Amino acid sequence: MSKHLTKRAEDYSKWYNELIVKADLAENSAVRGCMVIKPYGFAIWENMQKELDRMFKETGHQNAYFPLFVPKSLFEAEEKNAEGFAKECAVVTHYRLQNDPEREGKLRVDPEAKLEEELVVRPTSEAIIWNTYKGWIQSHRDLPLLINQWANVVRWEMRTRLFLRTAEFLWQEGHTAHATKAEAIAEAKQMQEVYATFAEEFMAMPVVKGAKSESERFAGADDTLTIEALMQDGKALQAGTSHFLGQNFAKAFDVKYTSKEGKQEYVWATSWGVSTRLIGGLIMTHSDDAGLVLPPKLAPIQVVIVPIYKGEEQLDAISEKVDVIVKELRAKGISVKFDDRDTFRPGAKFAEYELKGVPVRIAMGARDLENGTVEVARRDTFEKQTVSREEVVDVVANLLEEIQENLYTRALNYRNDHITEVNTFDEFKDVIENKGGFVSAHWDGTIETEDTIKELTKATIRCIPNDAKEEEGVCVFTGKPSIKRVLFAKAY
Amino acid sequence: MSKHLTKRAEDYSKWYNELIVKADLAENSAVRGCMVIKPYGFAIWENMQKELDRMFKETGHQNAYFPLFVPKSLFEAEEKNAEGFAKECAVVTHYRLQNDPEREGKLRVDPEAKLEEELVVRPTSEAIIWNTYKGWIQSHRDLPLLINQWANVVRWEMRTRLFLRTAEFLWQEGHTAHATKAEAIAEAKQMQEVYATFAEEFMAMPVVKGAKSESERFAGADDTLTIEALMQDGKALQAGTSHFLGQNFAKAFDVKYTSKEGKQEYVWATSWGVSTRLIGGLIMTHSDDAGLVLPPKLAPIQVVIVPIYKGEEQLDAISEKVDVIVKELRAKGISVKFDDRDTFRPGAKFAEYELKGVPVRIAMGARDLENGTVEVARRDTFEKQTVSREEVVDVVANLLEEIQENLYTRALNYRNDHITEVNTFDEFKDVIENKGGFVSAHWDGTIETEDTIKELTKATIRCIPNDAKEEEGVCVFTGKPSIKRVLFAKAY
Repeated sequence: MSKHLTKRAEDYSKWYNELIVKADLAENSAVRGCMVIKPYGFAIWENMQKELDRMFKETGHQNAYFPLFVPKSLFEAEEKNAEGFAKECAVVTHYRLQNDPEREGKLRVDPEAKLEEELVVRPTSEAIIWNTYKGWIQSHRDLPLLINQWANVVRWEMRTRLFLRTAEFLWQEGHTAHATKAEAIAEAKQMQEVYATFAEEFMAMPVVKGAKSESERFAGADDTLTIEALMQDGKALQAGTSHFLGQNFAKAFDVKYTSKEGKQEYVWATSWGVSTRLIGGLIMTHSDDAGLVLPPKLAPIQVVIVPIYKGEEQLDAISEKVDVIVKELRAKGISVKFDDRDTFRPGAKFAEYELKGVPVRIAMGARDLENGTVEVARRDTFEKQTVSREEVVDVVANLLEEIQENLYTRALNYRNDHITEVNTFDEFKDVIENKGGFVSAHWDGTIETEDTIKELTKATIRCIPNDAKEEEGVCVFTGKPSIKRVLFAKAY
Repeated sequence: MSKHLTKRAEDYSKWYNELIVKADLAENSAVRGCMVIKPYGFAIWENMQKELDRMFKETGHQNAYFPLFVPKSLFEAEEKNAEGFAKECAVVTHYRLQNDPEREGKLRVDPEAKLEEELVVRPTSEAIIWNTYKGWIQSHRDLPLLINQWANVVRWEMRTRLFLRTAEFLWQEGHTAHATKAEAIAEAKQMQEVYATFAEEFMAMPVVKGAKSESERFAGADDTLTIEALMQDGKALQAGTSHFLGQNFAKAFDVKYTSKEGKQEYVWATSWGVSTRLIGGLIMTHSDDAGLVLPPKLAPIQVVIVPIYKGEEQLDAISEKVDVIVKELRAKGISVKFDDRDTFRPGAKFAEYELKGVPVRIAMGARDLENGTVEVARRDTFEKQTVSREEVVDVVANLLEEIQENLYTRALNYRNDHITEVNTFDEFKDVIENKGGFVSAHWDGTIETEDTIKELTKATIRCIPNDAKEEEGVCVFTGKPSIKRVLFAKAY
């Protein structure tokens, strides 16, 4: 199977699409732009959810659930805010199908079952949530309100790609309300940190933390914080955003609270989200020409054990030893699969688990049985070692940590090698076109320059990094003064 | 707050609605028939999900995710199967809003953005899933396919009630494919057992396991297994169903596999689901006039600690002792909240946690501080005891188990007292009208009799119990021969 995978150097985009299907992560569905997330892909999402949900709760958030549909009138209330995607969305206009009187066995929309007001399938939930918060917030004692929702959302994208951009996707959306501006800003920053920590510690995906330029901001936000990752093909991926919404939604939905001093004040808001897009980022950060490479902390199967045997008797002898190892690994909280299927040869199994990115493979054959050993192979470097059965559990536990670290370091080195400081527009174009990655350049701070650069190079401002140091410089395009470098890149 | 709760004896339905809102479980939304599940209610659902998900995985199932939308043509393929709710559903006809040229600031559906084929928001996912399974199943080696999905679904209900019947609800739907009829039947039975175990062990809600009569079956099923619970007002609640689908969906979507013998065979299927309706069942099984009563195994907060103090100094002294108890309880995996808010008096807090059904309340006041004691109160019986601080953790741990058991026993006794065997139709009507609960009666097995009884009494056949013993009898309505009693009841 793996030999049919297109090489990254040949066609990165084709490699990506093929890998997702061959590794059983996801596939396109009968519904335009919507994907089916297969069990192996969904198990990665569940692992992501588990860690993120824990981190949200540790920072004081609770989950809730709001309706899938947003009445059109609520969209109108925030139309100015949400103009980004309020328009390209799925609209429910009717509530009944009926037998088509003209075509036997066919259904049609019942023309009499037209809704008085159209319902929009949520592209994001600010409108419905802020309309609800109006009833929940009266006093400063009701604040802060710290809520998250795990949900599906729909945006009618014309060009879709599995995980990266689909009409329906799964995400979480945090929506918080605060008494003060400072608190809301601190919340938005905190969630950017949570996302960065998750990306780096669990996904082993280094990210740049920064703020979006005005034209790349969420339409209803006063400030959009982002984490930006770099993919193997030199394109950037916006991996998560955290918005400081000011009082925009409070004003649109008239959400006020009585302060300790008895005054009526509009509340301050944030929203923040990450989605199944992260799985696309995970794939394009670590995987290789043999298939998926998964960081151990998110891998659905961390260790696979493959027996190499002739005849049932040998299999039984191997299984007996393997069972002990399986038990010991599981006792350490390591997820392990013993693949004793007799319908596939060891070679085919090796290829399958390479394709699926299982971090560690253990093989046990007749010679191992004699010598009291096993063969341990790591997916990230393909290195193999022979290990005694007594040591294997410790070796594997260490190896999983080592792989997690190695993936991060490897990605970090690649990323750092692909942040290029430039001081002329010729250099800028050269790096964007030939080397790829982030270009660190001075910019005059105007939307016009940003737009022109985008038109000429397809590169956009990914972010103004949080840690950008102040330095005197001139805009790489206009020569006007600038005090900070920003990061440009082509992006997904 | 709790004093405003309507008494159950006055108006059970009003009590139910008020309780849900006052206990912060859920509320109606701006979207007709759709609810907002508030954090406290959602935390109960999360606890349910966690246990169910574990049980599904322990029985070999994996989660996946399928699209929200079902193209109308796929509905037509299974129209015969899904006629039950294929018709009353939300239909997406357009994919864009635009500024309304005639009304400034308003949006309208873009008439040019009409979909070629309408999309139905899934009322259940058999159609989209079986259309997908066609691509996944070729050989007997691909079977069994054991998949579950956690999702939102929409059915355009005209009369809705929070949790019990809402236009959008959250559920899980298992969809499995098997090589043989026997395997599929065994799977459907297994999942009925899983549901029953969950209901009884976690929800402390006794259920009758049985099969639906033909007219109450899921439209695409050859057999529908059910768990039926009894609410405090004498009405039954269908709490979960598990369907043996025969080869109906395999034939509708042409899903065949090559058997070991090389023959092409249609696969056999099951589907099974439980939903947020379970929360309605939980409420109506245990709660009382003071508010919610939650079984400890599903309670978001198992123990609340309320300090009774005058002045900061006393609060500090109490807090110091409480912190130790909190730590010890948490070390035992018990969820505990220390409510030291100074904006509410102890009495108000007591009422709030009674209303919210927190199983155990600990109070510590000045005298307790002197005596080294606390007051422990249980929510189910309102009993209080004074306990030394050294013993409190063990006492509470035992108490939680006792409450869990007591709730089950209490509900079981009530349920058993409300299964009434009747042998005449006069008795039947009398019990249904005056006593409520399940009526165990002989039935001639015809749809006509079932329909007539329903018309006359509003009672339906809830199930043919799995453990119904064979006995000679005559139908309570027609006098025709019958060999088994079935359970009738009015139902939600």
